Order: sequence, then C-alpha cells, then structure tokens
Amino acid sequence: MSEHARDNGRDNGRDKSPGLVEKKYLTLGGIDPEQPGGAMTLQSGAELSPITLAYETLGELNQEGDNAILVCHALTGDSHVAGKYNEDDLKPGWWDVMVGPGKPMDTDRYFIICSNVLGGCMGSTGPCSENPATGKPYGLEFPVVTIGDMVRAQKRLVEHLGVTKLLAAAGGSMGGMQVLEWTVRYPGMMHAALPLATTTRHSALNIAFHEIARQAIMADPHWNQGGYYDEPGPSLGLAVARMIGHVTYLSDDAMRLKFGRNLQDKDAFSFNLADELPDFQVESYLRYQGKKFVERFDANSFLYITKAADYFDLGLQHGNGSLVQAFSKAKARFLLVSFTSDWLYPTYQVREIVTALKKNGLDVSFCEIEAHCGHDAFLLRNDRLFDLVRHFLNTTHETVRRGGSHAL
Amino acid sequence: MSEHARDNGRDNGRDKSPGLVEKKYLTLGGIDPEQPGGAMTLQSGAELSPITLAYETLGELNQEGDNAILVCHALTGDSHVAGKYNEDDLKPGWWDVMVGPGKPMDTDRYFIICSNVLGGCMGSTGPCSENPATGKPYGLEFPVVTIGDMVRAQKRLVEHLGVTKLLAAAGGSMGGMQVLEWTVRYPGMMHAALPLATTTRHSALNIAFHEIARQAIMADPHWNQGGYYDEPGPSLGLAVARMIGHVTYLSDDAMRLKFGRNLQDKDAFSFNLADELPDFQVESYLRYQGKKFVERFDANSFLYITKAADYFDLGLQHGNGSLVQAFSKAKARFLLVSFTSDWLYPTYQVREIVTALKKNGLDVSFCEIEAHCGHDAFLLRNDRLFDLVRHFLNTTHETVRRGGSHAL
Repeated sequence: MSEHARDNGRDNGRDKSPGLVEKKYLTLGGIDPEQPGGAMTLQSGAELSPITLAYETLGELNQEGDNAILVCHALTGDSHVAGKYNEDDLKPGWWDVMVGPGKPMDTDRYFIICSNVLGGCMGSTGPCSENPATGKPYGLEFPVVTIGDMVRAQKRLVEHLGVTKLLAAAGGSMGGMQVLEWTVRYPGMMHAALPLATTTRHSALNIAFHEIARQAIMADPHWNQGGYYDEPGPSLGLAVARMIGHVTYLSDDAMRLKFGRNLQDKDAFSFNLADELPDFQVESYLRYQGKKFVERFDANSFLYITKAADYFDLGLQHGNGSLVQAFSKAKARFLLVSFTSDWLYPTYQVREIVTALKKNGLDVSFCEIEAHCGHDAFLLRNDRLFDLVRHFLNTTHETVRRGGSHAL
Repeated sequence: MSEHARDNGRDNGRDKSPGLVEKKYLTLGGIDPEQPGGAMTLQSGAELSPITLAYETLGELNQEGDNAILVCHALTGDSHVAGKYNEDDLKPGWWDVMVGPGKPMDTDRYFIICSNVLGGCMGSTGPCSENPATGKPYGLEFPVVTIGDMVRAQKRLVEHLGVTKLLAAAGGSMGGMQVLEWTVRYPGMMHAALPLATTTRHSALNIAFHEIARQAIMADPHWNQGGYYDEPGPSLGLAVARMIGHVTYLSDDAMRLKFGRNLQDKDAFSFNLADELPDFQVESYLRYQGKKFVERFDANSFLYITKAADYFDLGLQHGNGSLVQAFSKAKARFLLVSFTSDWLYPTYQVREIVTALKKNGLDVSFCEIEAHCGHDAFLLRNDRLFDLVRHFLNTTHETVRRGGSHAL
C-alpha cells in the first residue's frame, strides 16, 4: 500500500456509506523542488505562488496503482465529493449518490480523488487567499486562472498521491471541461474519460448568463472592486448571481413540476411589491438559494471561476481552432453523456465532441439520457447514468487488468 | 368622420411610411362623469385616481367605424407603435415593420390605436407619476396593477376614440396577455384577436426570471425602497434586470450566429477581471443594452409591470381555474402564433390556448413559425407572420363588411 493510500486511512468496508472523510491540503511547493515555493506560470503568463490544493480521497489505491479516479467538480463545487466530515454532518458530499461503497464509483474498488479547483474558495488557493506580497487577501490582485491551470495543479496532486496513470477522470459541467482538458494535456496519464453534460467551449448564451451574474456582483457597492474581505461582502449581488445560475441548472419542465404557480404560505396574491414575503413558491425558493449560497461562497471566486469557464476553448487552445486536431492528442476511451432537458450544454454540443473524437478513431460511447430535470441531472440519482458509469468503469478496469487493449 | 378620427388629423396616404405621429394623453376623469376624477377600483381593491393614458393613433377611423385595431405593447414597450415623432427622429416605433401604409396592419385601411399600459413610465399613470395625496411621485405607494386593470383602462380609451367594436386587438408577449384578457372581458367589443408568442399564465420559469430581475433592482441601494426620484436611481440594478430579460428574448441559435465567441475589439483574452472593456462581443452587447435601457425606463415601473405579468392567470380569474371555461365568454375569431425558438412562451403554451378555444367551438387559426431568433421574433420582419396577419385582418374585415358570420 502506498503512502498516500495509508494517509487516507479509512476502512469503509464495514458499512455501505462512504463513511467519514477528511479535507486535506497539499501545497505544491512541497513536492516540486525545481520550482521553489511551488510557483506556477499560469496561462496568462502571471506567476502564482504558493499554491495549495484542498482535496479529499475515498477508497484506497491498490497495489497495482490502477484504480484511481479523479473527480472534477463544477462551478461552485468543492473537494467534498462524497461522505461526511463527522457523524453529526447532515449533508454528505455533492456526488454522494455516485461515489461510495457499491455505488457506480465504488469506493470498495476504486480510489477516488477530488480537489477544490485553483481559484476556488473551499481551501484551494484563490482570490480570498493571502497574497504573500501584501499579507492580505488577493482580491482582484489574484491572477486570472484557466481550466488548463486548474488541471495542471490537479496533475501535481495526482502525482503526489502516487498515481502514475489514472483509471479515469470524471466530471460534469465545468468538471467535464477539466476532464476534456486532461485528455489532451496528459493523454499518457489516463485510461478513460467521463465528461458529462459539458462542452469544449461556452456558447454566447453560456457566456451571457455568466456575464450577467458577474455584473450582478460587481453592481453591488459592497463588492468594492473585490476588496471586501474586512467588511460585509456583496451578498445581495452574489445572491442574484446565484439565482441566475440556479435557473440555468433547472428546466422549464422541472420547475413546472416542482413549483408551478403555487403560492408560498398564502391563499391569494399579496398585491404588495414591498412585501418581504414572496407570492410564489419559486420566488421563495430562489431567494433561499441565493441566501444559502452567500454563506458558503466567495464572490471573487465566483468571478474568477466563471471567467475560466468562459475562456475555455479546447479546439482553439490545443488544435488551432480545430476540435478534431485538438483531440488528436487524446488516447483515453470516452463515455460522454448529455441530458435531454439540459439547455446549458445541450446535446448538440456534446455531439460535436463525439464527432471530433470519432474522427480521431477513439473509443467513444455516447448516450443522451431522457431527463426532465435540466443540467442538474448529472448530479442526481439516475439509474441510466449510474448503469452507464458503472459498466464503463468496470470494462475499463478489466481491460487495464488484462494488459489493456492497444487503445488503453 | 368621428371626432377622434379628426383628432388624429393625419394624412399618410401620400407616402409609404407611417409618417409623423403624435403622443396624446387621455385623462379618464374627463370621460366618465359617474366616476369623479376618473377613479378606478383596481383588481387589488385599491382606488387609483387620476388615471392618464398616453396613446398614439395611425390611420383614420372610417365612417362605418369598423376598422379600428388596438395594439397592445409588451413589457417595456410604449404607445409609440410605428412612425416617427418628427422628421429628425432616427428611430421609428417598436412595430414599424408591422404597422404602416401597405404593411400587414395597413394604416391606409385600418385605424391603429396603441396606448402605454397603466403602471408604465412612458406617459401613462404609473409609479413615477405624481401621487395627488403627497404631491410627490408614487414610488411604492403606487397600487399593484394587473393585466385586467390595464385592459379596463384601454377600454375607456377605445370608447373615447368613438370605437364601439374593435376590428381586432393584437399584441405579442405581455401584449398578447392583454389581447387574451380583452377576449373574455369585453367579448362584445371585438371581432378578432391576434395574441402572438404569449401565454395565459406565466410558468415557474417565467416567474423565476422576472423575480431575479426584480431582485437585481431591489438589491441596488439606489433603489431605496422605490424612493429614488430626487436622486440617482438604481441604474446598475436596472441594467442587470434588463440583461436578464434580454437574454430570455433571444435564443441559443440567434446568439451563436450573432456573437458566437467573437472578441470585442481585442485579439486575445484580457486575463483581467478588473478590465472595463469586456472580452466577448456578447458581453459588450449586454452591457450596452443594459445601459441604454436605464436611460429610458423607470425601475419601479419594471417592478410593477413584471408583477402584473406574473399575476396574470386567465383560467384562474375568469374560469375558476379552467381555461376552457374562461374562454366560454369569448366570441372573437383568433389568430395565434408561436415561434419555434421562443423558450419564454414555447409553442406548447400557445397550443394550450388553441385547445381551450377549440373546445369552445371558436374560430381559431394557429401557426408555429420556424424562426431562430427566439421570443423577439414577433417584433421582427417575418414574411410568414406578415402574410398571416395581413390575410387574417383582411378576411375578418371582409366578413364584417358582408354583415358578418354568426361568430363575428
């Protein structure tokens, strides 16, 4: 058993929940003596140091070192992919339905790694981290990071954990972008890729929603050009930003079924615009989601991470504008999934990826899953998705065990 | 020629543009001696007085009085439906492609009436009007108005103009809601109805977008609970609200074709979040739209009018929850239109109306028009739409002339 696996030190074989997990921290300087302080030259050309990644692991890396799966989180996710931090923890990690003993990403079988992205606010270095040059939080002094930068930092974590080749990288939405970036940046370091409900580049509509959310934050005077860490932050602007995002994660159908035109604790319209209590359930829900988000997320991180997603353009960066050329570097086998009601990354965007991969002769499985719950579908319990993921990981692992097909 | 037609006093037969139009004002008190001061008891139970409507007319009411068309505007429209105010006017009215000599709503043949809605800010009584009780703008003291209240005020204007029965009422989006309300509230006062790209009730998704836009305004400290008329208003919040609305009026396709991922006056990403200049064209476009809107629209009016649209529920108010029952009052012949890429009022919503009308044995034409430009399609030049409207108005008018079918 390698050191990192012992580090993980969990025995979750006794029950069928992922059990307790621990958030850990890796400061890159500690693992790369050639780059003092762990400095990284970002895609923008800026230098960033130190860089810390918050991460969590579940399951154990086996003797062969062939069972590691990197899970990449979406826009506002974190390293807490599954399990609980303690027994009193009411809320498990964000993909607890997918990751755990006996689940599609079976922690009895696989070693799961998940880290908070660079630029985040859940333990990894980001705009709310201390700027060593000033001793204060970076704010807007933090350099703009890209999906490529995030992935380069993840690679160092994976290496630190003793993994030379991932069984798979998996993620939905912006997590899927990271997975796609992995396939062309480190093709020799992974057997398989599972990009779900994602795209190789944001459409104008995607950028538009992100930009409006950013404008909502920056319109809040408490944002103060990003310098709010000693004062109350831009909570109203950030709440509006979250509400915008939240609607794009759902679907017309899902919202009709969930809320319709139901009133919130009322029998009739208030006819009162100044009323603190909203008329409709959907209004109440959105306000609640906005409020809750403000408690856990940093507004500047939201600006930086949405920008990274908007900048992402795999074909442009890795293929001179050609997605086919970009994927000529890839070697993994692929499972791609889209969802019928996802209007953020609709099926046609995922099909473009499938086409470009197939033109490179890669091993590609693709499924459009019927789901009414919109983009969020990848996060929810879905038997079809679970079966696909379970089977795909299983066949990949077996192929690797058998010495692998040429493609792997 | 009736008094109002002489009032209109235009001769636009000489050229093929709608020519110059004039904004006029009608204060309801002047026409209804039974309601001193023109007070109206609103749906909420509140009394509102005085009530002024800003309106414009094009063409002339004929001797028979059978050629009047009421055009109802959408959320942020106004009475300026077509033509120009003066020769130097660069921008004609909002439906100039539809209304004018030789156009589908032919001003050589029809008498077009369009008024700013109650609650608006383009000349009709609304939250920025003077509250007679205080001598100051109403702000949030303005009572909540409904689509029904708007239509009741319009009816008085129509009567004032000497029209006893409209040839048709027409409008898209919230204008279509008013048209639908007309058909069940004053069925004896209209021969035909043209509700375009509209609904009988907002879905949870529609309400969600409106609510987020309202929250964006109310999050702006300059909103000041609606009391900003002596100070700079909530321009940043209102701009964000407009950007949200604007995106919902377009479509994924239209935005891809128009903007794609084009950069704005740049060859490469700025990698700078504090940059005043946006990276992408679509960002620049949205910011511009937000800014322009703030110059012409009142934030409180935006709150009131979006609320009126959200409250609208024709089946609930006029049919005890049954749309079929609500339309049992209607007598008009109908032309309904939806657009394939309209995700604000998708075709299924318009089909619900068609079904309910047909169950009442009404004369209904419906067409889903292939268009990639989203909800905005009803405002744009579209040969299919124009042919439908022209033909429908023509046959309606001819039927009326011939003494009318029983249905008319």
